[in-house]
Amino acid sequence: MDEFSLIRKYFNRASERANGVWLGIGDDAALVEVPAGHYLVQTMDTLVSGRHFPVNTSAWDIAWKSLAVNVSDLVAMASVPKWFLLSLTLPEPDEVFLHGFSEGLFAAAGEFGITLIGGDTCKGALSVTIQASGLVDTGAEVTRCGAMPGDRIFLSGPVGSAAMGLAALQGRESLPEPTRIQCIEALNRPRPCLGLIPLLRDHASAAIDVSDGLLADLRHILDCSGVGALVDRDAIPVQDWISEHDAYAYALSGGDDYQILFTVPASKAKTLREQASVSDVALFEIGEIMPDGFEMIMRCGAGLQRESVGKAGGFNHFGS
Amino acid sequence: MDEFSLIRKYFNRASERANGVWLGIGDDAALVEVPAGHYLVQTMDTLVSGRHFPVNTSAWDIAWKSLAVNVSDLVAMASVPKWFLLSLTLPEPDEVFLHGFSEGLFAAAGEFGITLIGGDTCKGALSVTIQASGLVDTGAEVTRCGAMPGDRIFLSGPVGSAAMGLAALQGRESLPEPTRIQCIEALNRPRPCLGLIPLLRDHASAAIDVSDGLLADLRHILDCSGVGALVDRDAIPVQDWISEHDAYAYALSGGDDYQILFTVPASKAKTLREQASVSDVALFEIGEIMPDGFEMIMRCGAGLQRESVGKAGGFNHFGS
Repeated sequence: MDEFSLIRKYFNRASERANGVWLGIGDDAALVEVPAGHYLVQTMDTLVSGRHFPVNTSAWDIAWKSLAVNVSDLVAMASVPKWFLLSLTLPEPDEVFLHGFSEGLFAAAGEFGITLIGGDTCKGALSVTIQASGLVDTGAEVTRCGAMPGDRIFLSGPVGSAAMGLAALQGRESLPEPTRIQCIEALNRPRPCLGLIPLLRDHASAAIDVSDGLLADLRHILDCSGVGALVDRDAIPVQDWISEHDAYAYALSGGDDYQILFTVPASKAKTLREQASVSDVALFEIGEIMPDGFEMIMRCGAGLQRESVGKAGGFNHFGS
Repeated sequence: MDEFSLIRKYFNRASERANGVWLGIGDDAALVEVPAGHYLVQTMDTLVSGRHFPVNTSAWDIAWKSLAVNVSDLVAMASVPKWFLLSLTLPEPDEVFLHGFSEGLFAAAGEFGITLIGGDTCKGALSVTIQASGLVDTGAEVTRCGAMPGDRIFLSGPVGSAAMGLAALQGRESLPEPTRIQCIEALNRPRPCLGLIPLLRDHASAAIDVSDGLLADLRHILDCSGVGALVDRDAIPVQDWISEHDAYAYALSGGDDYQILFTVPASKAKTLREQASVSDVALFEIGEIMPDGFEMIMRCGAGLQRESVGKAGGFNHFGS
């Protein structure tokens, strides 16, 4: 089976004209319509076997994660996912792999409302590159750079689970069974929250997706916005196992969570919470933007401990 | 040097607001403006070391070719190149490689008028994925599917040189020095002709870029358009060496040429030639679209030989 037949068989589903697609898979390029009053939002991420997912990850999960991490970037800009291109590099045109991969890919595409419009397949070491495009109303885009002192810091869901899942798979951590399963699911099947998009668009001053680790990604916002932050460690949503075992390193610097970390002016926080409640979107307030510095407070016995967050996402203890 | 520093050092040149870029490299995604009345045209190609370029190809040439083959797809749709994202997978963060690669990349980007707006860098086997976007006036797009019987078939420049260059590098062909140099240049540094874009937009009924080989790519047009063709082999522009050595296989099925193959209604062919002459764009008429069949004629001694073109781009001899 040659490259063209493979592409047609597994990836050329319904060249839908929906979603603004004028011409999909099969020509030199795809043609799509961008309505007036919107920015086109573009991101691209490559996942390499053994680096971004364990070598024995299922084809279904590889496909899901590859699309999810790109959609996560689009959500972080408050943009609605629209189209994606796929470049799949495989050692062999393995039909079992391609079947599972295409099932996972289209399951994720359906979940995220995004349409495959083209791409490439190659022979080589297993890796997946996806380029995803979204749309955001002009002026409503959210970058990393708009946080102001006094803004509240929010997180869309628990962090640390993906890093725990990886540690469990690699035999570095022994977890009880339900926790282990949840963590491996968090690692392999991140679920960007599309319900957050209108809330970010209407209220957020800055946003980023948590891919490198909570503190490292918060630092990107702080650096870009020229501000500091005070984070309440005990307000960060985590698996019970993390708090019970004081294993906060997973949550603070674990990475791969693909939750959205964002800031909201204090004056808008109440409306945000109300809208989130109405639309059943999870929100966790974890701190506040400060004029400068980057510190974290945490309960310690009967008192509070305060630490400065180091450059590498580590900690420089300076008192209690 | 970590990933972020590498990206900043080599790829984050002038986050220009020109070319419709609102937000370039450095955030979760890039933001660009698509003016009303245009389709967004999107393509993506991956080049794997040892498959799409010889393993000892220079970093400069790898970068040039990776961008050029994507721009070639945009030109084939009659679209003007605008933006691209780069995913570069490297075994090591090799600064010598990155320096050469970024020089070649920005040289090509300047030549083609396309702006780098984001991407990704990874550790892994050397490969380059580029996703490129262009714009075409709504209704002026050119696909593979519009060829009609009577249309003239044109080619933008010589084919076969890239395949000869590869054969020379692999020691399969011994070429005289000036030819050898020209052919390796054709292999490593394809130059999509941007001057062709308005001519395609105004006159072409179908177009494709010649990546798989002239006959295979012409067959894509024929299949998509539901027509046949008669090609005049001796009108196909080739290196003198090919005609002197009767080595037409390079030109007919060699691939990697990235010339544009397109069809034009007979009624528009004269105007096309005049506009091409005024704008100094090369054009070679190589045949005609027929209701069905796929045949090639060629001079043979004092007479003409006529052959049917086989499915695999090979030939089924059936008379003279």
